[in-house]
Amino acid sequence: MSDRIKRVLILGAGFMGSAITFPISDSGKSVALWGTWLDDNIIDRCKKGQKHSKLKKILNKDVDFFFSNDMRKALIDADIIVIAVSSEGFIPVFEKLLTQLEGNIPIVTLTKGFVNFKGKVLRISDYAEYKFREKFGIDKPFYWGSVGGPVKAVELSRYIPTATIIGSRYVSVLNIFKSFETGYYRVSTTNDTVGVEVSSALKNVYAIAISICDGVYHNSKDSPLKDQYHNFKSALFMQSIEEMAYACGLLGGRMETAYKLAGTGDLYVTVASGRNSFYGRRLGMGENAKLAYNEMLEEDKLVEGYNSLKLAKKLFNMYSIDFESQMPLFNTLYDIVFISKKYNGQLEDLMKKLHIK
Amino acid sequence: MSDRIKRVLILGAGFMGSAITFPISDSGKSVALWGTWLDDNIIDRCKKGQKHSKLKKILNKDVDFFFSNDMRKALIDADIIVIAVSSEGFIPVFEKLLTQLEGNIPIVTLTKGFVNFKGKVLRISDYAEYKFREKFGIDKPFYWGSVGGPVKAVELSRYIPTATIIGSRYVSVLNIFKSFETGYYRVSTTNDTVGVEVSSALKNVYAIAISICDGVYHNSKDSPLKDQYHNFKSALFMQSIEEMAYACGLLGGRMETAYKLAGTGDLYVTVASGRNSFYGRRLGMGENAKLAYNEMLEEDKLVEGYNSLKLAKKLFNMYSIDFESQMPLFNTLYDIVFISKKYNGQLEDLMKKLHIK
Repeated sequence: MSDRIKRVLILGAGFMGSAITFPISDSGKSVALWGTWLDDNIIDRCKKGQKHSKLKKILNKDVDFFFSNDMRKALIDADIIVIAVSSEGFIPVFEKLLTQLEGNIPIVTLTKGFVNFKGKVLRISDYAEYKFREKFGIDKPFYWGSVGGPVKAVELSRYIPTATIIGSRYVSVLNIFKSFETGYYRVSTTNDTVGVEVSSALKNVYAIAISICDGVYHNSKDSPLKDQYHNFKSALFMQSIEEMAYACGLLGGRMETAYKLAGTGDLYVTVASGRNSFYGRRLGMGENAKLAYNEMLEEDKLVEGYNSLKLAKKLFNMYSIDFESQMPLFNTLYDIVFISKKYNGQLEDLMKKLHIK
Repeated sequence: MSDRIKRVLILGAGFMGSAITFPISDSGKSVALWGTWLDDNIIDRCKKGQKHSKLKKILNKDVDFFFSNDMRKALIDADIIVIAVSSEGFIPVFEKLLTQLEGNIPIVTLTKGFVNFKGKVLRISDYAEYKFREKFGIDKPFYWGSVGGPVKAVELSRYIPTATIIGSRYVSVLNIFKSFETGYYRVSTTNDTVGVEVSSALKNVYAIAISICDGVYHNSKDSPLKDQYHNFKSALFMQSIEEMAYACGLLGGRMETAYKLAGTGDLYVTVASGRNSFYGRRLGMGENAKLAYNEMLEEDKLVEGYNSLKLAKKLFNMYSIDFESQMPLFNTLYDIVFISKKYNGQLEDLMKKLHIK
């Protein structure tokens, strides 16, 4: 496999898959964008040169667009595949891809989270490697990379300066992704694939926990305190980072990855805006956890952290960790969302026994 | 010196000195609060049982109050001294204290920043140790601690859950401060005094840099981009942490302290609110750096990061570091504030060459 590539195939034409066409195309690569069966309308508009319906912007002229039933055509001449579907869409898209794949082509995923496969919870890359080996045995190297870091798609599509991080055990995969750099898109690299993946998956969970504060103090009557609860929020932010670091180490990654772009950096943007933080805010205001989740789902706003919380709990259980001492904030959030189903001061109670580093 | 103490003397009756009376008193210690010559009115009101004019709250009943000219009385029976004056007030208060001090009593400082002493820039603890030795020679141990972390005074005074960190080479000093813990005030400890001090001083500087984004995109006409520049802000946040870690190591502390409460945690709250971030926002909107600083000063809003930036530059120069490669964000901010005196895209330019970890 060469580090120098010409053509990139992106799978998934939603926010992220479409946004990343900008730096990849601007860095001089030829880009193919394939939409899933949910994206056919988007692809149709793009083919006609109209604005992308989610990004509200016309994509670069030289991007080639492919409908969901044209994956075979989309794959022609592709030197690397970038998967950018939702975590729910990952398994069906990856299985469809495998049926067409010859092997040897590197695959990089922007999809974050864990997957539920035959009743087991797996990291996405563990699942992908398992399926890859099922098809190719040990004859082909599993060229794989996981992308993380603080990247909001709409901002990237508007050339807001953005830093991302890719983890891969293969330096050639790191080099290829590094070649997507432009003035507004900076790529840092690490060989800690697992750390990037775990941090990326857990940041949604912790963003919910931290954002509960926003709801709790939202209506404070004490005027100097109006919207002033930064101490608490920061304490939870730091505890989140410590627990993400622990989880990275637990699952075979490196703890320090949680202190970098993939962990701290991504957590920072996830707390600042988006569905997970909005959901946390609703919890803090006393709403029922299940009802709030369902209401948002009906508005087509899937709270990814809610599902990651459930899956991660199951995954951590396999490692029989002591949640109380090792991941107390995770444990408390699980209680709030799935046991008590309501916020009633659990975070304040947690603080009374917490020892943050 | 015993780890178990009864009475705490706090120097400085402004926001922080007064706020910290709450956990110390609530943890069962007897508290003496001494006001500087700028605090006489505050002390007068407190003695009469009136609300503290800055915190807008009556302090605990059992706190003893002392006017600036009563330092000798205030020192009676004190087992530990907590300095909580502004960085500008540190030298005069410490020199006054030294004239009264017998030695052997531990001193802990909440004051953050660097001091300008006889034309040299020093870390506060280096200055204090120098003066202490001048008086006591090597006959007495220099029991010293530096306190940092994400603590807004008003919030602490309202029992918002708060986590703080103390650095000291003496475990007895750490134990004493740890004994101030209450349900709403959590104390973590480290022997990295220098790291706590350096992180605490630099976070004001970096909060200015990060907050420039708020001004730049404030008036964005592109509607999906309104207030959406989290990618950029997070990239700068992460670069700030990396540079704070570098500075900790440079000045004899430990890099990892910057990734904990003293660095990342304190930076998080400082970006979220306060004078330094407000000043950064004004820079981002294109205001002249010197004029904006002076205007805020006239409104009695001293931008501490502005002064720390100037002092830190002088300090780092002594270590002849290569700013371009080792502290590029610091260097860029210095350019914006003291050379160009105006923001005109320097941060976007920096991003084009930045490699964040």
